[in-house]
Amino acid sequence: MTSQQDQRMTGTSGVVLSIDAMGGDQGPAAVVAGIAASAEKNPEVRFILHGDSAVLDKLVAKSKPLAGRCEIRHADGVVSMDDKPSQVMRHGKGTSMWSALESVRDGEATVAVSCGNTGALMALSMVRLRKLPGVSRPAIAILWPSRSPQGFNVMLDVGADIRADAKDLLQYALMGVSYARNGLALERPRVGLLNVGTEEHKGRSELHDAHQLIGQTAEDAEFDFVGFVEGGDIPGNAADVIVTDGFTGNVALKTGEGTASLIRDLLREAFAYSPLSRIASLLAFTSLKRLSKRIDPRRVNGGVFLGLNGTVVKSHGAADATGISAAVKLAFRLAESGFTDRLKARVASAAELAEDAVQSAGEDGTHT
Amino acid sequence: MTSQQDQRMTGTSGVVLSIDAMGGDQGPAAVVAGIAASAEKNPEVRFILHGDSAVLDKLVAKSKPLAGRCEIRHADGVVSMDDKPSQVMRHGKGTSMWSALESVRDGEATVAVSCGNTGALMALSMVRLRKLPGVSRPAIAILWPSRSPQGFNVMLDVGADIRADAKDLLQYALMGVSYARNGLALERPRVGLLNVGTEEHKGRSELHDAHQLIGQTAEDAEFDFVGFVEGGDIPGNAADVIVTDGFTGNVALKTGEGTASLIRDLLREAFAYSPLSRIASLLAFTSLKRLSKRIDPRRVNGGVFLGLNGTVVKSHGAADATGISAAVKLAFRLAESGFTDRLKARVASAAELAEDAVQSAGEDGTHT
Repeated sequence: MTSQQDQRMTGTSGVVLSIDAMGGDQGPAAVVAGIAASAEKNPEVRFILHGDSAVLDKLVAKSKPLAGRCEIRHADGVVSMDDKPSQVMRHGKGTSMWSALESVRDGEATVAVSCGNTGALMALSMVRLRKLPGVSRPAIAILWPSRSPQGFNVMLDVGADIRADAKDLLQYALMGVSYARNGLALERPRVGLLNVGTEEHKGRSELHDAHQLIGQTAEDAEFDFVGFVEGGDIPGNAADVIVTDGFTGNVALKTGEGTASLIRDLLREAFAYSPLSRIASLLAFTSLKRLSKRIDPRRVNGGVFLGLNGTVVKSHGAADATGISAAVKLAFRLAESGFTDRLKARVASAAELAEDAVQSAGEDGTHT
Repeated sequence: MTSQQDQRMTGTSGVVLSIDAMGGDQGPAAVVAGIAASAEKNPEVRFILHGDSAVLDKLVAKSKPLAGRCEIRHADGVVSMDDKPSQVMRHGKGTSMWSALESVRDGEATVAVSCGNTGALMALSMVRLRKLPGVSRPAIAILWPSRSPQGFNVMLDVGADIRADAKDLLQYALMGVSYARNGLALERPRVGLLNVGTEEHKGRSELHDAHQLIGQTAEDAEFDFVGFVEGGDIPGNAADVIVTDGFTGNVALKTGEGTASLIRDLLREAFAYSPLSRIASLLAFTSLKRLSKRIDPRRVNGGVFLGLNGTVVKSHGAADATGISAAVKLAFRLAESGFTDRLKARVASAAELAEDAVQSAGEDGTHT
């Protein structure tokens, strides 16, 4: 295929991201439009694009910003949203998702981006990239618009695993701290543990154990533990990192998104209601656009898989070009900051701290 | 105390509600202001008010709408937000909360309203009112602004119990259907089971069992089962009744409230930003006020305890007069419609259906 030659990247400087072009709800055209938008804004970024080369060759050839900055790797298979993770682990070789992870595994790219099936992507990432030493369950972390000074909180896990015990929650806290430090530039992040009340006697027993473990680790791992927080604190200013299991985190994330989307639509209706309100919407256009940008979930699109040998950014399945571009921006920032290596170093030393905390909790046995 | 004589209710017609005046974050003045607002709008409603009579006498005496429509019952004790439910169950006699429930238990009032400690109120309600025959765990149901034609969805449990097994979730479905039928006038409500994905293989095992049980009961109990729904469907139009455990439901509720509140504040900021946007906010005043009313959590203030011999409305702890008034309105509507007796009848017949479904599920044993 000569077209593949034409699409070879020229030059070697900058950051290389590995992109799964297939599997999103909006198809490869949205993905290519998204990375083209990123390429236009950022001269440092280059791509390895994985998927059906017959389709991708044409899309990339039409894009000026991608000329000489995008290499296409053909992959026959596509992981669909309905595929079970276990099937994909057995039969996923040859899919664009598999291929995208291989580029990170082989060191050709620093970060992989996919908007495909989350469960399958996590399962394949675990198999191909492997967990970091000391991590028992990787987690997906997202940024959530909030009242905190930095404008966002980190929440994890939002769906890597539907269960988490006290030790897992402690590890999520440590990984979330590392992400907040590198992604949000917070020296000493505040960590909160999600529960149904802030009183210490409330909630499930594994949360009481996790409360104790995280509290004991905070000082050595250089973060502030604010104790239990509630759902209202996820968009609040009580903590920078919200720790929870993947079931609760996933429901909270989608509830928040759904609520924001409902309000956005009702606001649009309100402004279309009368001639006067239509004039008002014109006058307030800039202010409303700024607000809309602040709460647009596409702008903070991209869950990050934490706890693997390599970083994977999971874009929303329904992401359009704007969403993909936001995910690419996040991937670039993490690649550039050397996040994978920093997290690895932190988890290695944190694993020792955690082990100490677990042991002393076992000896102590009380919930204080 | 002669003042108590002065505050006796005159006449006997209308609906009597039993109000716990203490224990809310805003104190008894907000409660009295809230019931006064309701009394002003609704000539049918009368109150038995429980709490510190020295304080309440003065507050009620100053309120014209409450003249002759509010009886004060002195109670020395107040259940605080920090009290553990187990303590309140043992030592709660003599508190305003206990006294408010006694009026329902004794048949003097149809519905009780409190904005005190939720856990304590549920614990006391279970002890004093007792569970309905056939109900193993009562639940708290709320109305959630949504895209459904009726403008609201019912969600339960939002915090009565942090755990629920498959049979509990089935019972929540049946109680939620009854509430939607009486509270929202829906003939054949659509029921969804909250999960982290709509595919049948996703989520925890108790959810797969509940999926089967609820599906088998739907036809006989005259509701439509739409299967698994996600967090985004809580404010959506996929189901009218969202069933989940009290931990997940409580986190979702508070996340939704927190998100709405953040957006409201950002909107206010956006309109205060420039002279042009300030003019715009004046022009759009009516439209924005309508929107604000639609998503104001105070307007749908009031979780309903389902599954007890008597109805209890739990108002938000932070409720102000507007919030209290909304809770009173809901309590009145339920009292007037004879909801307690209707739910009792439905649960009794549903208990048989449920027993059949559980038995046939046990014989079947597969997840289809």
